[in-house]
Amino acid sequence: MIRDCVFCKIVNGDLPCDKVYEDEDLLVFLDIAPLAPGHALIIPKEHHTSITTVPPTVAGRLMQVAPQVAIALTRAAGADGFNLLLSNGACAGQVVPHAHMHLVPRKADDTIVLPARTAKYESDEQKAEILRKTRERLAK
Amino acid sequence: MIRDCVFCKIVNGDLPCDKVYEDEDLLVFLDIAPLAPGHALIIPKEHHTSITTVPPTVAGRLMQVAPQVAIALTRAAGADGFNLLLSNGACAGQVVPHAHMHLVPRKADDTIVLPARTAKYESDEQKAEILRKTRERLAK
Repeated sequence: MIRDCVFCKIVNGDLPCDKVYEDEDLLVFLDIAPLAPGHALIIPKEHHTSITTVPPTVAGRLMQVAPQVAIALTRAAGADGFNLLLSNGACAGQVVPHAHMHLVPRKADDTIVLPARTAKYESDEQKAEILRKTRERLAK
Repeated sequence: MIRDCVFCKIVNGDLPCDKVYEDEDLLVFLDIAPLAPGHALIIPKEHHTSITTVPPTVAGRLMQVAPQVAIALTRAAGADGFNLLLSNGACAGQVVPHAHMHLVPRKADDTIVLPARTAKYESDEQKAEILRKTRERLAK
């Protein structure tokens, strides 16, 4: 637990939440600033700023639980689909520095717009270099 | 394998891809219409339209692999963070009906804008009803 972390305070019961689901490792609660009705956050109870340091068993469990919670929330909200979104790092839109995944129930007419542009690589070489470096790092 | 599924064709080797990572259950390759350099897709090899029918072991494995691939891609692309995004259902922005998670390396100045509005519940009762129905379904 980190003293000044709002999500740690929620896990610890020092701040209230609209709890959706809880198990030993994970907590799911409604986002107080929802993109759409039923928008929830699924978090590891243990404090990690980045999803990259969450123990693999807990990260794996998150993705086993998320779809089941998403089905339940989507149906309860009268929605037809959902987004799962995780923002890692301030530049990616992460506001609370305690790893969390957004579950957003979606409807066809909800006017939420996800980014849809197509960026170009500077060159074929840039793309090849990204691939090469990525594969090298993963092979270690 | 589904005959007309473009991702099944990639898994099967009938269409080329810029492969980033592969194991028994998962394939990661660069998106041909990237939001940013290094934008990749992580998919279960087995065809499932929805993440909700992917076997839990495979879904869990996806979230164990995604952060590691995201670190590698983010560093290789000279980025500072990343988004993981899964769109489930056409209304949620899912275009290819084979479950997939986007890995998007992010930079502070990349001009990608994620939705940030705050929706309101119609009433406290609507919110309470969504919570009640969700908890009921999850308790089954």
